[in-house]
Amino acid sequence: MDQLSTTFSALADPTRRAILARLAQGEASVAELSQPFSISPPAVTKHLKVLQKAGLITQSRQAQWRPCKLEAAPLHEVADFIAQYRQFWEQSLDRLDSYLQTLQAQEKKHGKKSAK
Amino acid sequence: MDQLSTTFSALADPTRRAILARLAQGEASVAELSQPFSISPPAVTKHLKVLQKAGLITQSRQAQWRPCKLEAAPLHEVADFIAQYRQFWEQSLDRLDSYLQTLQAQEKKHGKKSAK
Repeated sequence: MDQLSTTFSALADPTRRAILARLAQGEASVAELSQPFSISPPAVTKHLKVLQKAGLITQSRQAQWRPCKLEAAPLHEVADFIAQYRQFWEQSLDRLDSYLQTLQAQEKKHGKKSAK
Repeated sequence: MDQLSTTFSALADPTRRAILARLAQGEASVAELSQPFSISPPAVTKHLKVLQKAGLITQSRQAQWRPCKLEAAPLHEVADFIAQYRQFWEQSLDRLDSYLQTLQAQEKKHGKKSAK
């Protein structure tokens, strides 16, 4: 699988995204990563393996508690991919904005009429 | 599956990303979308269903050629998710940058010494 597909695949799980969010606050051991989730350490280990294969985390082999660390480089590639599409959702937001402005203008006009 | 997981899952395939890239240039029929890929129209239809379920495309029911259209709203959610991690890859780039500057400074120093 290509790198970008592997990254997207690794991100397609709420527990794995929660693990990344935890690691964004600092290194953590597998035990620490298991605590906030109602899943077993082996299940967490399975998720960590997916994240590790995708290059999204690394696990230290030196320290005895073997902390996991966030590696953000693959997310940079995702950001570059997404940036190509920015104009499309900005266009939709612009359309929504001008629609709301039309609604407000109509309301104002209507309000003035009823005030007379 | 939650929306963000569904979006990531839909994006975890190079053909589906290529279909989105094509639709970013304008609406296209299934036949038009099949042309650049060495896969059959039924295989393209399968990919389109995944993209449609994820809300990344819509297919018109009115026109006879039933064009597909890019829908960027789910990508906006991905951009918001990724933005949380921007500081991490920027930090790595900064570290790389200062490392390169150190290298250049050492090279300059070394160059001066050999010139003497």
